[in-house]
Amino acid sequence: MLMNVRPALPKGTRDFNAEQVVKRNFIRDTIVGAYERFGFEPLETPAMELLSTLTGKYGAEGDQLLFRILKSGDFLRSADATALSKKDARAVLPEIAEKGLRYDLTVPFARYVVMNQHNLTMPFRRYQVQPVWRADRPQKGRYQEFWQCDADVVGTNSMLSEVEFIQIYHEVFQKLGIKAKLRINNRKILHGMASLIKAHEFFIPICTAIDKMDKIGAEGVREELLRLGLSNDQVAELEQLLALEGSNMMRLNELADRFAGSWIEPKGIEEMWEILSYTSQLGLESLQVQFDLSLARGLSYYTGTIFEAVAPDHAIGSISGGGRYDDLTGIFGLPDMSGVGISFGLERLFDILEDQGWPVNFSRTGTRVVFLPFEAQGIPRALECLQQVRAAGIKAELYPDVEVKMGKKVKYADKRGIPFAAVLGPDEIASDTVTLKELATGNQESLSLDELVNRLLA
Amino acid sequence: MLMNVRPALPKGTRDFNAEQVVKRNFIRDTIVGAYERFGFEPLETPAMELLSTLTGKYGAEGDQLLFRILKSGDFLRSADATALSKKDARAVLPEIAEKGLRYDLTVPFARYVVMNQHNLTMPFRRYQVQPVWRADRPQKGRYQEFWQCDADVVGTNSMLSEVEFIQIYHEVFQKLGIKAKLRINNRKILHGMASLIKAHEFFIPICTAIDKMDKIGAEGVREELLRLGLSNDQVAELEQLLALEGSNMMRLNELADRFAGSWIEPKGIEEMWEILSYTSQLGLESLQVQFDLSLARGLSYYTGTIFEAVAPDHAIGSISGGGRYDDLTGIFGLPDMSGVGISFGLERLFDILEDQGWPVNFSRTGTRVVFLPFEAQGIPRALECLQQVRAAGIKAELYPDVEVKMGKKVKYADKRGIPFAAVLGPDEIASDTVTLKELATGNQESLSLDELVNRLLA
Repeated sequence: MLMNVRPALPKGTRDFNAEQVVKRNFIRDTIVGAYERFGFEPLETPAMELLSTLTGKYGAEGDQLLFRILKSGDFLRSADATALSKKDARAVLPEIAEKGLRYDLTVPFARYVVMNQHNLTMPFRRYQVQPVWRADRPQKGRYQEFWQCDADVVGTNSMLSEVEFIQIYHEVFQKLGIKAKLRINNRKILHGMASLIKAHEFFIPICTAIDKMDKIGAEGVREELLRLGLSNDQVAELEQLLALEGSNMMRLNELADRFAGSWIEPKGIEEMWEILSYTSQLGLESLQVQFDLSLARGLSYYTGTIFEAVAPDHAIGSISGGGRYDDLTGIFGLPDMSGVGISFGLERLFDILEDQGWPVNFSRTGTRVVFLPFEAQGIPRALECLQQVRAAGIKAELYPDVEVKMGKKVKYADKRGIPFAAVLGPDEIASDTVTLKELATGNQESLSLDELVNRLLA
Repeated sequence: MLMNVRPALPKGTRDFNAEQVVKRNFIRDTIVGAYERFGFEPLETPAMELLSTLTGKYGAEGDQLLFRILKSGDFLRSADATALSKKDARAVLPEIAEKGLRYDLTVPFARYVVMNQHNLTMPFRRYQVQPVWRADRPQKGRYQEFWQCDADVVGTNSMLSEVEFIQIYHEVFQKLGIKAKLRINNRKILHGMASLIKAHEFFIPICTAIDKMDKIGAEGVREELLRLGLSNDQVAELEQLLALEGSNMMRLNELADRFAGSWIEPKGIEEMWEILSYTSQLGLESLQVQFDLSLARGLSYYTGTIFEAVAPDHAIGSISGGGRYDDLTGIFGLPDMSGVGISFGLERLFDILEDQGWPVNFSRTGTRVVFLPFEAQGIPRALECLQQVRAAGIKAELYPDVEVKMGKKVKYADKRGIPFAAVLGPDEIASDTVTLKELATGNQESLSLDELVNRLLA
């Protein structure tokens, strides 16, 4: 046995103490509550997936960030001796590792849908709230283990799914008390813009450039677009589109007019129109929904709608992303399965609430009363009281060491933030009562057991 | 991108669908509810721990069963070339892996206590419900990822902690509707027995033998004891102790009398006496507590009380274990910290409930109503109704594809097990009503929106 190892955590990982767990559960339960009211059902998948499931799904950078699990036992046995002696990690890898840790919740979901396609009723709505792991360089606010709270619908092309996700965003942010803005765009509209300025061959780099608007400003975007080889006229036309003013619908209509004079596929405009017109009838007071032509995230997987929620009052950037993928499960052999989903990052929401304060409907409820018998004779009576108090659903503790001085016992209650201490001395036992002390005020009351239960429930 | 990979799960891992998640959450919430009413606070630790934290804590066999995580990037760079070319896995291991997956919840708890010793108020009670991973050969009922539901108290020697754990066992099994027996013993009593027959040098192998009583019977145990080199007299004396009859207290008193005539330390007897006498006053009707001298589990870590809960009506064996360790945190440099804890295995409890049926207080509540608009004109009205229904806390869905035939829509509700369908055709829209169809009976009612909400809440 190793002795006196100074214990530590792996970098980028964290313990969560009671206060943190309770706060995180509040966020999780708020999101799960919304998902469930919208008919989403829970799914849980294992932490470990086969590397054949994970590899190649997140781009070259993602593959680098996968945590891989060493085969058990003599893991070098089947490895190639030449590759080993050359220290050729890439060649050795497939022979010493076949599993990895879940990198996100979307790929496990796609895998699940394909494996269970014959038993699922479409459209299939699932939510999933689980940790994911990425071997990213840890830094403030970025961890190697973090939680995602996803919901996806698969098996329908209907834009009503998007409308319902917007309602979910509204409900979640309202319940959490976070002032949020939901940016929404559509990859097909982005493609239409690139076509309109006759630069569709630069579609992806144009998107990459305009998506940086927030970071590098209009001038920076212009420079990047010119560097791509776009002409001044092309850039000017694009800037004019991005600078359209007015309501979501006015800007969409203006764009529709411009697309209408060309051969550009109007599908993206139609989809956005459907989403915005239904949404505008819903009276979502507290969520600002913004049709935003400069939103161009996730273009390697989203094929239609793109969502990004931000908290404008906080520097933290994106707090949720989402979008539609026409072919979620094709990679696992089930083509033409359209899906749309969103994902909240638990850590980001936590940081915002720590920053701005927790909403009034959040409260941490720990132990409400601790029983402090004076001496061993008080224990049977304490156990009897505790049974009744707990049977009423009250969280209650027994201070186990009777020989400890009363002052130290009360200090324990105080440090733990327990509001009440129930003292059981010889007088209380003789009179079949309990002395209840409120720690914040020092007030003491002599109560019967029934009175005690009622007092603690109040 | 790899195409058409036939997706699969790593062996020994599972997906949990909605029904399974809801059932597992019921078990988890029952256990957590009990822990919280007894003043335990939640703790969560990361899935990954440093191998320096994990290695050497679970014996040689445990070390074999750790899942180790490959270093990121060029993991072979710092590995010894000679060891690699010799395929010396043991020598290479420390250079290519420094993290592993959590093997249980006790070691992370001990690590947490030591790392946070200056901020914790003692006694410290925490519960922890998280998955653990073991590279065990998968078989029926044994998985590589499974959930433990632990509670521990650290920083007190008081037997009242044991008494409270017995109460928790009583409450959990009663709420789950599982008929259970709690076996209880004490390592010090086992040691006293070995001393009494003058064979304390064979303490561990004697315990290993008598712990097999259930499996190999009295005759098998006798053979194993004789094989150790015990004399016939010694074996006979031990058998006589194991065969003591009467109530828990009668057998304990008998044992106390025999110990009293020797130089044997009576501490174990005293501890057991305290536990049994308090427990007997609690009136725990539905939990059979059995002082069982043949219970000898976990002797490499338990130093006092040993718990094992079994479900006698099921072949499944142990459903929970626990015990006291005098020196929980010594291995991480914090000596003399006594702790006692228990651990429920979620999978075992799940299997028992699947076998015997779920208790009446369990119910799965999925989507209660699905809205089925006839055509696009019905959608705004459906969205409006849905907002109100959900605001009342009712789980409700919108069938998103209006163009699908009504028969198929109703079939969707049926397959999903949704009890009600709300139909919105031209008549309903004109009259500001909804037609609510109960799928089990085929009954239809025409209702106003307020009536609908009340009907669904009923």
